[in-house]
Amino acid sequence: MADPSNPRVVIIGGGFGGLNAAYALAGKPVRVTVVDKRNHHLFQPLLYQVATASLSPGDITQPIRHVLGPYPNVKVILAEAESVDTGNRRVILRGAAAAAYDYLIVATGVRHAYFGHEDWRPWAPGLKTLEDALEIRKRILLAFEMAEREEDPALRQAYLSFVIVGGGPTGVELAGALCEIARHALRKEFKEIDPSQAKIFLIERAPAILPIFHTSLSRAATLHLRGLGVEIHVDTAVTRVADGIVEAGAMKIRAKTVLWAAGVEASPLARSLGVPVDKAGRVLVGPDLSVAGRPEVFVIGDLANLAGPGGIPLPGMAPVAIQMGRHAAVNILRRVGDRDAMPFRFRPKGMMAAIGRNAAIAEIGGLRMTGFPAWILWLVAHILFLIGFRNKFIVFTEWAWAYLTFGRGVRLITNDPISQRQEPPA
Amino acid sequence: MADPSNPRVVIIGGGFGGLNAAYALAGKPVRVTVVDKRNHHLFQPLLYQVATASLSPGDITQPIRHVLGPYPNVKVILAEAESVDTGNRRVILRGAAAAAYDYLIVATGVRHAYFGHEDWRPWAPGLKTLEDALEIRKRILLAFEMAEREEDPALRQAYLSFVIVGGGPTGVELAGALCEIARHALRKEFKEIDPSQAKIFLIERAPAILPIFHTSLSRAATLHLRGLGVEIHVDTAVTRVADGIVEAGAMKIRAKTVLWAAGVEASPLARSLGVPVDKAGRVLVGPDLSVAGRPEVFVIGDLANLAGPGGIPLPGMAPVAIQMGRHAAVNILRRVGDRDAMPFRFRPKGMMAAIGRNAAIAEIGGLRMTGFPAWILWLVAHILFLIGFRNKFIVFTEWAWAYLTFGRGVRLITNDPISQRQEPPA
Repeated sequence: MADPSNPRVVIIGGGFGGLNAAYALAGKPVRVTVVDKRNHHLFQPLLYQVATASLSPGDITQPIRHVLGPYPNVKVILAEAESVDTGNRRVILRGAAAAAYDYLIVATGVRHAYFGHEDWRPWAPGLKTLEDALEIRKRILLAFEMAEREEDPALRQAYLSFVIVGGGPTGVELAGALCEIARHALRKEFKEIDPSQAKIFLIERAPAILPIFHTSLSRAATLHLRGLGVEIHVDTAVTRVADGIVEAGAMKIRAKTVLWAAGVEASPLARSLGVPVDKAGRVLVGPDLSVAGRPEVFVIGDLANLAGPGGIPLPGMAPVAIQMGRHAAVNILRRVGDRDAMPFRFRPKGMMAAIGRNAAIAEIGGLRMTGFPAWILWLVAHILFLIGFRNKFIVFTEWAWAYLTFGRGVRLITNDPISQRQEPPA
Repeated sequence: MADPSNPRVVIIGGGFGGLNAAYALAGKPVRVTVVDKRNHHLFQPLLYQVATASLSPGDITQPIRHVLGPYPNVKVILAEAESVDTGNRRVILRGAAAAAYDYLIVATGVRHAYFGHEDWRPWAPGLKTLEDALEIRKRILLAFEMAEREEDPALRQAYLSFVIVGGGPTGVELAGALCEIARHALRKEFKEIDPSQAKIFLIERAPAILPIFHTSLSRAATLHLRGLGVEIHVDTAVTRVADGIVEAGAMKIRAKTVLWAAGVEASPLARSLGVPVDKAGRVLVGPDLSVAGRPEVFVIGDLANLAGPGGIPLPGMAPVAIQMGRHAAVNILRRVGDRDAMPFRFRPKGMMAAIGRNAAIAEIGGLRMTGFPAWILWLVAHILFLIGFRNKFIVFTEWAWAYLTFGRGVRLITNDPISQRQEPPA
């Protein structure tokens, strides 16, 4: 029930943005409800390690209820938000009572998109959710198994060919990890094929991979990946993806496994807000992160389009989402205290990407690092930011083990491995 | 191609039986092919810990290819065996070339069965595969989430009621773990419900739970579980399972979560052998583990029905499967060397079952143990037999963490948590 001295804040989404908003509101004079259709927070920066069989899903997730449980003024509901009824200030939940709010934070993020080519989806899974990661893991491991069974040499090579579309951090991290799987983890386990003969293609439309990094780092990453044996094609647009075929530029690649790391589109919930969005569907937010004409509604994280320095929208990265989450919470508390909301200013903390064993690139303040020192920094940063002491410890252990043995700890194909391979979902 | 000096052995199934047969044939003058429709060996004794959110699937599995990779005379194929053509001595594989054999070991195990009530299946998942375990984990965790959302008190109690059908080791282990989840792991994380109010029913048709153990141990387990708050009903047959309802004896229990730990039936592959089977479909094997009229075909593990002491069939347990696997391999090597096959004799190594934190029962030789010492023994035995040093280490770490914190490390709902809840599969 509405109570001006103890207003209701609904947060949709328990990712980096939503969770940090909830933390910042914990113990404050507001009643917070966090709604998510999943029961867990996902540490997305390490999702590619689940997809490439290094970590278990449980290692990079924490139940939202568990991390927010200790706060008496924060309630967690597992439910899917269907739409926002901004006129009546309530969130419509599928199969549960609507959640009324005085302030709303929408933090439902983005999902991968195919530039209008929805027919590519079954052949080229993206990497946003845990289910995506398990699907990719299944396809990678299954490709080697099918190659071992296959007697036709051309088809065998198609099973041993992997195309990664998109040369951003996710694409680069997948390419590096795939090299390690093919060259190290699977060595000597097959009788008919040599996994190290696998071909890995990385295709990027822009003139360079990792375009958000400084040119020198992008170049270092390119050299390192080429040294690992990745075929990098920049300035190359993918024009067709079908069963066993990728067409890109003048190339026609026979590859059974295609991974999509190229485009994103906003969570569909954004549309129900009825406010201006950009062409990817992200909500154009004001300087204080609220939306046009609705000062009580904030949109944060990947779902928000807010111009950064030079007019370019802030990138969809964890540090942006975390800072936006805290800022939206502060602005709500200011409003509750009858003060004006403040404009958001992003304080960059640096960026990094891993490129396989012993190598990474990192950009922190003016400092640029490559190779082993960057990789150590990457390790430390990811362990530190991972939520939950147990997860930190388990992930550290898994990494130490994998590093020493060159192995992959979680080479597991689940969900009916054989019948579902490579076929589009029913 | 057939070569009497280097005969072909096909092993169907990479469980305890099949894997141990393959180990025993490694480096011997035979060409071995292991066929499994999954890429991993599953350490089934700890499967209930995946179902109850303590361990990750990757912790109790190892790729079959990885454990058998080092042996040059052992090949691994990921494929589903459709049938055995015993006349032409070949195994028909779905989507792959048939595998010809000179000797065959069938070790495809059993799956859970509903005593002819197939309509109970959607409401009462069993626990044989990893997918089963993840489905059970999802239902358990989701039940508490739905209870938190539910406003009707009767329905809320139905979400907080759990019925386990079958009082063998699996049923007892599930009941004990469920108690811990409700009383410890979820404490203080919900705002509307008190998880410790959950009701847990354990229903057994026989006059006592754990009937394969000595009466004194069965009684100790009963007392311990009752102390934890489990409602145990023995001499009680389940007569109906439907959405939210279990009828058993004179009881009509409103419970949204029902777990099936009661009956098994043989893998359907057994039928294609065309040899006598028992009423659960298990193959009646001769003393040397071969089947009637086919001395080159061996059936081992849970799929085999071989009378033990007193004429009772040997139980479906890992030690039986392991010893049978080794024995079938020895008999094949004897035949290859023109010697007679030897009769199998089971050497019991003991039995144990965990009943939650700090308590277990164990029977080793004439020695019977209960409580904390039995639990320590259970821990040590399971860690020792778990395959792969990495898995041993990770599982040990997870257990130590869970023990010290009373937590559950892998409280993860995957595979579209909301839309699939409690509904029968499409």
